[in-house]
Amino acid sequence: MRYELYYWPDIQGRGEFVRLVLEESGTDYLDVARLPGRGKGIAAMMRLLNDNKSGFPPYAPPFLKAGKLVIGQTANILHYLGTRLGLAAKAEARRLWAHQLQLTIADFVGEIHDVHHPISGGLYYGQQKREAKRRAGYFTGERMPKYLDYFESVLSGNPRGSSYMLGRTFTYVDLSIFQVVAGLRYAFPETMKKLEPARPGLVTLHDRIAARPNIADYLSSSRRIPFNENGIFRHYPELDI
Amino acid sequence: MRYELYYWPDIQGRGEFVRLVLEESGTDYLDVARLPGRGKGIAAMMRLLNDNKSGFPPYAPPFLKAGKLVIGQTANILHYLGTRLGLAAKAEARRLWAHQLQLTIADFVGEIHDVHHPISGGLYYGQQKREAKRRAGYFTGERMPKYLDYFESVLSGNPRGSSYMLGRTFTYVDLSIFQVVAGLRYAFPETMKKLEPARPGLVTLHDRIAARPNIADYLSSSRRIPFNENGIFRHYPELDI
Repeated sequence: MRYELYYWPDIQGRGEFVRLVLEESGTDYLDVARLPGRGKGIAAMMRLLNDNKSGFPPYAPPFLKAGKLVIGQTANILHYLGTRLGLAAKAEARRLWAHQLQLTIADFVGEIHDVHHPISGGLYYGQQKREAKRRAGYFTGERMPKYLDYFESVLSGNPRGSSYMLGRTFTYVDLSIFQVVAGLRYAFPETMKKLEPARPGLVTLHDRIAARPNIADYLSSSRRIPFNENGIFRHYPELDI
Repeated sequence: MRYELYYWPDIQGRGEFVRLVLEESGTDYLDVARLPGRGKGIAAMMRLLNDNKSGFPPYAPPFLKAGKLVIGQTANILHYLGTRLGLAAKAEARRLWAHQLQLTIADFVGEIHDVHHPISGGLYYGQQKREAKRRAGYFTGERMPKYLDYFESVLSGNPRGSSYMLGRTFTYVDLSIFQVVAGLRYAFPETMKKLEPARPGLVTLHDRIAARPNIADYLSSSRRIPFNENGIFRHYPELDI
């Protein structure tokens, strides 16, 4: 079975957490909305969105087609793929813990997005700049250090060693931490310069993941969409305060 | 095994989604932070929060202690409890679908919260009233109808009939829909008066759940904390526009 990922073709966004898992595991997949031709492209994604015929109409991209299943919600997709692609433990307690961490990453990602969109996702950034600037101060000053401290403490408190977030081997949660650190460096370079020294575990983990052969290959390929100001991690210097 | 729920004692908040599941199923549980005495109360909750010794330090309440497990993230707790308490299907495809819907409810709940806190959770509402009012217009005009339409369409498109969100029997997702409808009626009564007639399925579902014996008993008991202006669903008439 070839997995089909449906996500916006021009941004990393939430879909990137799924792409990283598929790339690391060397899985055969189609990134459908990025492909030309019949039954492909954004039109194909929009057709499946809210399509009641599957029995599983997703609310928003990303979603994954796996045979007859259509699975939505990023963390749910990773929960499904994790054990299948060898990127999560099989024991229930460990699966729940990985999923819990992923859901906390999802909360963090939501807050990162809302820094540039505090009023409405239906408006442009330029239409909510003043509110964004006010929110950014609290985000970089309070929320960002609090989330990073939490993940650093999970890593340093891992009873099986601090090489990975859970246990002795790496999981999809490590890939997501890599993505968050990379995204924050792009969006908030000055803040990250200040925060990184006190969170050395996360920095080391980011570098370890970036050096994995499949990830390094992916990052240098055209399949990796560059960070840009349409995605979640946006570099607006006026918000990096 | 007696489950221990840890959540803020004075609000329904995210903990309420878990309380509803425990109450409906008639499960023996302790609502720890609401109890007096040694090893109880908010102090006990704060001790467990971020406690690395369990191996599963949660980022925030609610979390559930189930024997040696400590499970955080509301949707993750429901995913765990669902099959155990007879409130979810056991087949993986149906479990994933229930969880996907619950995660979309969680996104909706996050947006509902941020209407009164668009700038920072660390500030009072009164300190971000102007931004809240601006956000509220987009929330009641765009986001609220969009989410409600989605859940209404899932319900009406349920291939096994429209009595419940999934399949023929009721699940924890129905309990969460009940809570969202009840909360929106409290927080945005005028908007709900306008939106409800076109979403009759959700209204009927709300009433059907409220009439279940265990839920009716719970709602009329002192265990049900009244909605108030410290929780997620807050009634500020100036935001109900």
